[in-house]
Amino acid sequence: MSGTEVVERARAILGPAHVLVGPADTAPFLADWRGRYRGAALAVVRPADAAQVAAIVRLCAETGTPLVPQGGNTGVVGGAIPDDSGRSLVLCLSRLTCIRDVDPIGDSLTVEAGCTLAAVQATAEEAGRLFPMSLGSEGSCQIGGTIATNAGGTAVLRYGPMRDLVLGLEVVLPDGTLWNGLRALRKDNTGYALKHLFIGAEGTLGIVTAATLKLFPRPQSVATGFLALPSLDAALQVFAQLRGALGDRVTTAEILSESQLASVLAHVPGTARPLGTLMPWYLVVEVTDPMQGLDLAARLEDLLAIGLEDGSVADAAVARSQAQANAMWKLRHSVSEANRKSGIVVGHDTAVPVARIPDFVAHATMAIERVRPDARVVAVGHIGDGNIHLVAILPDSLRTSGEPLDRIAQAISAAVHEQAIALGGTISAEHGIGQSMRDALAAFKGPAEMALMQGIKQLFDPQGLMNPGKVVAARH
Amino acid sequence: MSGTEVVERARAILGPAHVLVGPADTAPFLADWRGRYRGAALAVVRPADAAQVAAIVRLCAETGTPLVPQGGNTGVVGGAIPDDSGRSLVLCLSRLTCIRDVDPIGDSLTVEAGCTLAAVQATAEEAGRLFPMSLGSEGSCQIGGTIATNAGGTAVLRYGPMRDLVLGLEVVLPDGTLWNGLRALRKDNTGYALKHLFIGAEGTLGIVTAATLKLFPRPQSVATGFLALPSLDAALQVFAQLRGALGDRVTTAEILSESQLASVLAHVPGTARPLGTLMPWYLVVEVTDPMQGLDLAARLEDLLAIGLEDGSVADAAVARSQAQANAMWKLRHSVSEANRKSGIVVGHDTAVPVARIPDFVAHATMAIERVRPDARVVAVGHIGDGNIHLVAILPDSLRTSGEPLDRIAQAISAAVHEQAIALGGTISAEHGIGQSMRDALAAFKGPAEMALMQGIKQLFDPQGLMNPGKVVAARH
Repeated sequence: MSGTEVVERARAILGPAHVLVGPADTAPFLADWRGRYRGAALAVVRPADAAQVAAIVRLCAETGTPLVPQGGNTGVVGGAIPDDSGRSLVLCLSRLTCIRDVDPIGDSLTVEAGCTLAAVQATAEEAGRLFPMSLGSEGSCQIGGTIATNAGGTAVLRYGPMRDLVLGLEVVLPDGTLWNGLRALRKDNTGYALKHLFIGAEGTLGIVTAATLKLFPRPQSVATGFLALPSLDAALQVFAQLRGALGDRVTTAEILSESQLASVLAHVPGTARPLGTLMPWYLVVEVTDPMQGLDLAARLEDLLAIGLEDGSVADAAVARSQAQANAMWKLRHSVSEANRKSGIVVGHDTAVPVARIPDFVAHATMAIERVRPDARVVAVGHIGDGNIHLVAILPDSLRTSGEPLDRIAQAISAAVHEQAIALGGTISAEHGIGQSMRDALAAFKGPAEMALMQGIKQLFDPQGLMNPGKVVAARH
Repeated sequence: MSGTEVVERARAILGPAHVLVGPADTAPFLADWRGRYRGAALAVVRPADAAQVAAIVRLCAETGTPLVPQGGNTGVVGGAIPDDSGRSLVLCLSRLTCIRDVDPIGDSLTVEAGCTLAAVQATAEEAGRLFPMSLGSEGSCQIGGTIATNAGGTAVLRYGPMRDLVLGLEVVLPDGTLWNGLRALRKDNTGYALKHLFIGAEGTLGIVTAATLKLFPRPQSVATGFLALPSLDAALQVFAQLRGALGDRVTTAEILSESQLASVLAHVPGTARPLGTLMPWYLVVEVTDPMQGLDLAARLEDLLAIGLEDGSVADAAVARSQAQANAMWKLRHSVSEANRKSGIVVGHDTAVPVARIPDFVAHATMAIERVRPDARVVAVGHIGDGNIHLVAILPDSLRTSGEPLDRIAQAISAAVHEQAIALGGTISAEHGIGQSMRDALAAFKGPAEMALMQGIKQLFDPQGLMNPGKVVAARH
């Protein structure tokens, strides 16, 4: 069947208004927000509900048309962008925005894939509950995408990644079958965990159309602290001490290098150092409790006094107002903006076992400097997750130097990944594989695991039409 | 190859002392502890380490010999018992007891499959940490089995089932490949979640030989309460209020019906009512905190006072000593013993969405009474998980009545399962499928999901040798 006929049939299913073909209409869906990945498509289709998604998937299965699902298009690995063949349909989930159910007794809610993360957070709040996932892109990223990529963010330490927050899924399978796995159950030991295959599969095994998610009690007491630390070993010591004393009250522990903080202060208006003491590392710590009226700030100060005494903490401030807390958080939330303004960014998403963080950062920083002595290395990340984003910033002058930027970035990333792998780590902690990490994944996993992954892909999607070229290459 | 030759080759791999063939030696491995499932085997083999497990699996793959892995043999669905063909090897994991690593900084430990749950708890305690899973069989059940069955227990409310406690796995695949997935990572988004396929697969996709598990801070403050409640609706109201106020401090919330408590008091020596008030339902609640010196008992009393005021709580006691707390827990832990002593037990492991518990218990109790007016129904379970074990107790006189007990039990279970399914529930919350629930699973899941499960089984184990007849039937 010709591409024109596929588009005609899509129009018959969705109505002409929801099948976009003109270049101006489709352009926002054919490139990622950073402009690093570009593709082409027969059309961008916008179904209204799961039944229409299933009809489009059936159309693709019948006509051999590749399908690329897309949520908020906020990813960083090119997972939602089609290839440049122009043969694909891009399936936009944005119209699936129904909140199907809120259950405050069972602490769950059921939402459609196109709901933004912010909308889900707001729905939970209206019910007096917390949906804990928190991401920089929460205003525009969609729940379907956060499930497809098993998104992380700053609350993983306490609440886990998206995988831990999903009770049930509704998925359109590659043959167009609508699988209803929306059970709002806390326990279900009935066979193989299909749910977990779809989570993190980036749309290569089926399309998530709705999810039942866990809710939590809302924090009623909060304290925020900013710590200056002499070393990463000291940071681990302080973190272990806080977690040992406070348990899961330590909801967030974000680390920044001095080089990262300096970049933020230099490039982002309205930021200021919370402390006079300059140290190589800083930790932004948030402590929360669902119990009302606790003086967590006093408790945090008591614990930090121990660190100040034994030297693991060089200096510390505990916010005494929401404005002070916001100022601390602004430093953390401004790192992407600051880094983009300070040069050419080559970022990474490695994780290592928590105890190996100091070795990893030392070795990987040296490795970057060996590859590019002109790179400045900054670090920001989630210390309790072992997930430190090591970022190499290259001088903007390189853009006009004629040097091949892609190849420079690849050499830097290969060096960083090598260090993470050597320490038992991973090359993608929370961003996923998409197209940018696909070849690196095959090298990372080894043949036994890749063979199983390719077998699963073949089993679920024998025609290879679901988000082709992402995660695993086709098996031929 | 003949069975004799398979046994000879197993002897060459393991040494003759670790290949058991005599009836007296093999008998304990060929029946479950309740005596409900019996099978036969060529031999029981006892490898010493993962390499020997891999060698035995390769032997089975080469010779077409079925293999049944067995841990502590504490399951209740016949998952570790071979069929009666006598063609299988039973692979006993008990000699794989090495604690490979303890990492108090990363809060993880790596243990081999044959370690008992109690040994893992003790190892964590020595490191000043908590491994939270808690089961009645913890002294004899093995970690490999708890992973293979995604075990639950009384701490799921706070810490999740086994699936949530596993960071990484080492698995011998059905072709004898040793897959090292023992990454001690809190985040890892690199492709399909193979780990989650092995968890809960009951040895049908491969054999878990070691695992890296999460550790937690130890509770330092504890309070235990025993509540008498007028209804299940009241129980849900109190539970929601406690969880809203205390969050994850509510680590356990176990519910017992008055009929269940009466059975315990009648049949188990050394038990006594903690309260003078008789009510249809009781809740044993444990509240814990890693912070030292908190008066959680006072806090719990304050919260229960609200319930006593509004009528949701009829009476309550908060333990003022460890002895009082132990006495409360003894009531909960004695239910299996009491029920066995009081008649013929037909137990269930359903779960429903938490808010549907009252409807489920009402409907399923009536359904049992319709099937067997002579059945006494008792209920015990994990209210926060929606997992109520509804138990029908039939008079012992039935044993000599000539009536077919198996068919009576099947009729009762079908009626209970029907009610759970009608309320969006599951027929197996924490016990798994094994052989006893296999046919019920196929009816429960529907064709699309069963086809995917059978496809996964076929992909991983094309010869169908790994724990055959469990979870999914072979596809022919």
